[in-house]
Amino acid sequence: MTTQPYRPAEIVAPYLLFLGDIEDSVSAKMARAVVIWRPEKAVGQLRMTEQTVSVGIEDLSIEDAVARGAKTLVIGVANSGGKLPAHWRDVICRAIEHGMDVASGMHQRLDAIEGVAELAREHGVTLHDIRHRHPPLEVGTGEPRSGRRILTVGTDCSLGKMFSSLALQRGLEEAGHKARFRATGQCGVLVAGDGVAIDAVIADFISGAVEWLSPAGPEDQWDIIEGQGSLFHPAYAGVSLGLLHGAQPDYLIMCHELGRPHMRHLPHRPMPDMAACIEANLSAARVTNPKVQLAGFAINTSQVDEATARRELEALSQQFGVPATDPVRFGVAPLVNALVQGDA
Amino acid sequence: MTTQPYRPAEIVAPYLLFLGDIEDSVSAKMARAVVIWRPEKAVGQLRMTEQTVSVGIEDLSIEDAVARGAKTLVIGVANSGGKLPAHWRDVICRAIEHGMDVASGMHQRLDAIEGVAELAREHGVTLHDIRHRHPPLEVGTGEPRSGRRILTVGTDCSLGKMFSSLALQRGLEEAGHKARFRATGQCGVLVAGDGVAIDAVIADFISGAVEWLSPAGPEDQWDIIEGQGSLFHPAYAGVSLGLLHGAQPDYLIMCHELGRPHMRHLPHRPMPDMAACIEANLSAARVTNPKVQLAGFAINTSQVDEATARRELEALSQQFGVPATDPVRFGVAPLVNALVQGDA
Repeated sequence: MTTQPYRPAEIVAPYLLFLGDIEDSVSAKMARAVVIWRPEKAVGQLRMTEQTVSVGIEDLSIEDAVARGAKTLVIGVANSGGKLPAHWRDVICRAIEHGMDVASGMHQRLDAIEGVAELAREHGVTLHDIRHRHPPLEVGTGEPRSGRRILTVGTDCSLGKMFSSLALQRGLEEAGHKARFRATGQCGVLVAGDGVAIDAVIADFISGAVEWLSPAGPEDQWDIIEGQGSLFHPAYAGVSLGLLHGAQPDYLIMCHELGRPHMRHLPHRPMPDMAACIEANLSAARVTNPKVQLAGFAINTSQVDEATARRELEALSQQFGVPATDPVRFGVAPLVNALVQGDA
Repeated sequence: MTTQPYRPAEIVAPYLLFLGDIEDSVSAKMARAVVIWRPEKAVGQLRMTEQTVSVGIEDLSIEDAVARGAKTLVIGVANSGGKLPAHWRDVICRAIEHGMDVASGMHQRLDAIEGVAELAREHGVTLHDIRHRHPPLEVGTGEPRSGRRILTVGTDCSLGKMFSSLALQRGLEEAGHKARFRATGQCGVLVAGDGVAIDAVIADFISGAVEWLSPAGPEDQWDIIEGQGSLFHPAYAGVSLGLLHGAQPDYLIMCHELGRPHMRHLPHRPMPDMAACIEANLSAARVTNPKVQLAGFAINTSQVDEATARRELEALSQQFGVPATDPVRFGVAPLVNALVQGDA
């Protein structure tokens, strides 16, 4: 498959990050991604209630944000199913009336909200549906491609694959290597400015879209491909497998959250066994890259104290013979070193 | 997930089956599905050249077909990627000008062909895009559902999963059991009159769509869910895995073609090892149904003589301890008996 020339429209900063009235902190991941990776782009946050999750930046009204130069209202929320709650409509419409573009990572298109398309036309603003931006799609081929590829996989969704991928990209670059971040989710696409939200493409084209996203490259270039979901999540495993095959990874980084009680949104479903999860991912990945290896672990340890975190990381590293780190707490140097040495 | 009231428009028979100018017999699967399972609905076939694949029924022009009462031109072809060849446009337009509806199972919508939407409006005919018919989509939950479920899986695509599923449904019904066929591909949907082409839904909703398609049912009802692709096909495995999780099967039927030289459309990619393929499917299926079992094999033996076929089936049966048959050549009685006895 050849890389198509494809340039989605720029989402113009600064952003006002809209958090609706969500109270589940993990759902704020669009807003948090901007605050962590592109803080210079966010002028403030807009929360509908006192109880709404905060991403730790200034609360602003639409009027105040516009006065500070805000150009785009970014829906800072990524929920399961990707529907925009009906009672958020008024805020979206007011932003448009104040001349702001709107960007959303939902499955539901912004222009599917009653009156929004007309209002946007009237005020000359742009609606960005990040999850609906993709190149012309083709089915995958599984053909080997040049270059080196790393894919972040996981025991579950929403446990740090995007963060770990971006941290690895930065870490490799700081160590003097060519490294590209390949965004596969709406938050990653927002941060990177390009990429494809893989869970929003037609199912037949999952792996083909990833082949497009990470085309043949220079042999000394690392593509760090953002993983999605988990082979063990009953809603999303199809996306995870197509992504794994299309990514054709040389190295997997296994992402996990210490102490997560159950699969996300599924209280009765236990987390998968780590050894089984690694083996399932390696085994599936061998379909398109027989030489795939586990390079290490990126573990979210935010629920435990530092001593426990270090002990658990060391235990994982001992058990599987590869480095384990928490990219947020301890950085990605152990993973960068292992990747660079393993590939030397 | 509750079953939504959802009734797609009826595709009115009789059909004229359009084969374009394809010379790959397997691609004629839409037409062949009708000829085998709904022969009373087909008035004839239309081939653009002498070399075009035939499905063994009378060649008719559009004019002759209309004179015999044909109501719908059915694109009888399902190709990889699902694009309508541009040079088929004239035939489609002439059918519309003669007052026929058109039905297609391509990803590309009929109204994406230049001028077709206008022509259809002008002549008051209906365009059926079978792959774009689906209920409102939700993400899967993996929640256990009542009833018994059988899923046909395979070593590759296009080797008999639909035929085997339909034959099993008929066989179970003839043996006095309640059995429903759940179509997941464009050919199956055309034959059944309902269902969802799973490879055409948004990737996030693959398993959710299958949960919708085969909802909780009576404990004595068999749902035979049509499988798609293969966990080992680098283009389509994501669809296969989401379908496997959503189907929550109690029993798998492994489909395979004796003597197939390589994965479909991928000359350099060998077929997977049968034992590995069975284990990968069972292992993945356990995510939503820990009690899943292999019930038997449905093997396409059309490339070998009958003695060889019987010998190979017996060898498979011995090796894996379950019945093996060729549904076309020898019928599905061994599978029906095993399913009914295994479940007694």
